Amino acid sequence: MSAVHSEAISVPTAVVISIGEELLEGRIADTNAGTFARELLLKGLHVSKMYTIGDGVGELQTLLTELADHVDVILTTGGLGPTADDRTRDDVAASLGVPVIPVPVEGAIEHLVEVYSKYHDHPATEAFLAQASMPAGAEPLRNFVGSAWGFMVNLGTRTRLYCLPGPPVECLSSYRDGGASADLEERFGMASSLAHGVLHTAGAPESVVEEHLRELIVDGGNPRLGITANADKVSISVLARSEEPARPAEHLLETTLQDLQQRLGSLWWGRDAQTMAGIAVESLQEAGQTVAVAESCTGGRLAAAITGVAGASKVFSHGWVTYSDQAKQQQLGVPEVLFEQHGAVSVEVAAAMAQGARRVSGCDWALAITGIAGPGGGTEEKPVGTVCLAICGPHTDYSICRHQFARAGRDAIQRQSVRDALDMLRRGMNGLAPLA
Amino acid sequence: MSAVHSEAISVPTAVVISIGEELLEGRIADTNAGTFARELLLKGLHVSKMYTIGDGVGELQTLLTELADHVDVILTTGGLGPTADDRTRDDVAASLGVPVIPVPVEGAIEHLVEVYSKYHDHPATEAFLAQASMPAGAEPLRNFVGSAWGFMVNLGTRTRLYCLPGPPVECLSSYRDGGASADLEERFGMASSLAHGVLHTAGAPESVVEEHLRELIVDGGNPRLGITANADKVSISVLARSEEPARPAEHLLETTLQDLQQRLGSLWWGRDAQTMAGIAVESLQEAGQTVAVAESCTGGRLAAAITGVAGASKVFSHGWVTYSDQAKQQQLGVPEVLFEQHGAVSVEVAAAMAQGARRVSGCDWALAITGIAGPGGGTEEKPVGTVCLAICGPHTDYSICRHQFARAGRDAIQRQSVRDALDMLRRGMNGLAPLA
Repeated sequence: MSAVHSEAISVPTAVVISIGEELLEGRIADTNAGTFARELLLKGLHVSKMYTIGDGVGELQTLLTELADHVDVILTTGGLGPTADDRTRDDVAASLGVPVIPVPVEGAIEHLVEVYSKYHDHPATEAFLAQASMPAGAEPLRNFVGSAWGFMVNLGTRTRLYCLPGPPVECLSSYRDGGASADLEERFGMASSLAHGVLHTAGAPESVVEEHLRELIVDGGNPRLGITANADKVSISVLARSEEPARPAEHLLETTLQDLQQRLGSLWWGRDAQTMAGIAVESLQEAGQTVAVAESCTGGRLAAAITGVAGASKVFSHGWVTYSDQAKQQQLGVPEVLFEQHGAVSVEVAAAMAQGARRVSGCDWALAITGIAGPGGGTEEKPVGTVCLAICGPHTDYSICRHQFARAGRDAIQRQSVRDALDMLRRGMNGLAPLA
Repeated sequence: MSAVHSEAISVPTAVVISIGEELLEGRIADTNAGTFARELLLKGLHVSKMYTIGDGVGELQTLLTELADHVDVILTTGGLGPTADDRTRDDVAASLGVPVIPVPVEGAIEHLVEVYSKYHDHPATEAFLAQASMPAGAEPLRNFVGSAWGFMVNLGTRTRLYCLPGPPVECLSSYRDGGASADLEERFGMASSLAHGVLHTAGAPESVVEEHLRELIVDGGNPRLGITANADKVSISVLARSEEPARPAEHLLETTLQDLQQRLGSLWWGRDAQTMAGIAVESLQEAGQTVAVAESCTGGRLAAAITGVAGASKVFSHGWVTYSDQAKQQQLGVPEVLFEQHGAVSVEVAAAMAQGARRVSGCDWALAITGIAGPGGGTEEKPVGTVCLAICGPHTDYSICRHQFARAGRDAIQRQSVRDALDMLRRGMNGLAPLA
């Protein structure tokens, strides 16, 4: 930060290119572009444009020629596999006017030969072994979870080019563990004038969250705030920019996040890559407590969210997907009379499910969800999106009825309900006001 | 494509543009580009490139100027909301040299005024009402699930431009129900020379699937075949092109898919938008049968996959997430001695879980999964990725041990295991060879 002496600190720019005919045909969803947009932002680069191109002869070369020396960083994913339409190596070499050579790393080819021999009874093909090659003069980026090597190289005098494999786990491996991230850090991290952070909230709709911080959202302001909402959470992103060396972006970011946390009170629950389920597992672990879940309309998604967190086995032992009334009675001891008096989707049945789950499992906490995820099953009194949730714990025992945003569909109703259940647990464990 | 001659039917080309600073910052994942890539392909258009751009002044206009008359279709999503950085209407109007006018649809503005009044106690702002405006001369595309209208208009003499709102449910609404899809169909559908289909398989790795159809995968051939693999399935996409009017693409597609189905035998299970869980629910419904599940390492994901299908309540009543040994004993009656003799991750425990789930639930079928999803918990004998699965049904009762691809991580191991369990059910219900 202090190394930059000019008065106006410039923000380096980047372009992300996703390569593959399967992307242009919509056969697979491109998650890499978003991943690296975020990674580059965290390194202090402004991504000005992203491209998705096919694997036709020369397509990448044409685009590289167009972009070279106009941006500081180009990052590509894809086109490094073993088939004839994997042309990234050749296109970059052609752009640079150099040949393609084996990566100068001992054992690289031998490793591919060995991998190939496991699945085939003939020698490895030339195309397969080409995965351990790169344009002459480039630096190899090792891929620890696949066979295609990435590489990085200068393009013209200004642009640094990073070429990574396409599969999401593989490009992350060659980016993080292979050396691209460290190279970026070294080149741009020191002079970084951007800092980015995200604060996550639950318990209020986007419009209410926005009201808490409207005066901070100024067009063209610094920091720049943005709100994004989906079925899982409402998040506020903060992009801070250092306008003078004495006021580093990180400092502005932290000050802003603290201000936001104060304004949002109990609504905010986490930052950046944190998840509600991750926080739940962590809090339970710290408290030496456990949780059980009983689900109807979410059908296992609440349990799956919790057990999606590594280490969940320390805090989670029992989950029930009691989809039928009979299962709710038989497994959780919900009294039959509650179904007759209130229906399966009722705060009474939700409460009885949670109490039953806590009793049978012996866990400290229990969460229960019963509702109508649709598209069928709604009535005038209880339309699709009606979801009852209950929590039962050491000092907490209540149930609520929510009206989820039904037009967003079954999947979104299920996700909103999982979010609400985890929010009830967070509030219960932290002695916060119950979710209303 | 070698067979391009004078009589060849030309394939119209398209470009997809996603607009929004939040995409360039990686704050939200862009699912629209992939969705419309697929939609345009199904209309017979070849998507040649996709762009993601920010919402800076004139960014879209610059790109439109570059692309106008070079492609047949441009489809944009985003930039039609109520904030100052929603500039799609203005940029398109500037490209066309026309003013922005209210959409010529009765009640459009009044509807927005009404929507606004629900959430605010002051009159609707100009920026909010601008959502019901468009460049003069365009045709409005109604959005049935949000407040921003889309529109379509000619750009130059060749290009048809469709501008849709950004939120995924809203752009689909104005595309499908608002009129964009029908307009595309009318302009390009009749002359469509492309047909696209996908066949899904399970039970064999990508390399084995490829061997079954290697002779059909010809570089530049027609139809063009592509294989994509993830933790859920291995799929073969077929893009057929009509080379002469007498041999329509649809016919070539169907012939090829039938050929593939023959070659793949019991490996293929569905087409296009079908899912394994969807097929399971459908098959059970047709057979008048039910299924219960007992999960350990997948933690509710198998139940969630099944109950993610609308109508699952007809075939699914009971699921258990028995994450601890104690839960497996208590809930499913797995004998304690099995844990001592074989460990919780064993074909014996899996079999006992399935038998217990079937017995307690009274369902026709039961599936069970117990394994090590990682990253911790692995041993030399049973490394991370070791997963035992069992099925128990009318004429089937077996369990297997799989070694999932552990390097792909916890999430992928869970997904692979859900896939395998559903594949065991499919095989069991259809009298096919067991999954090995």
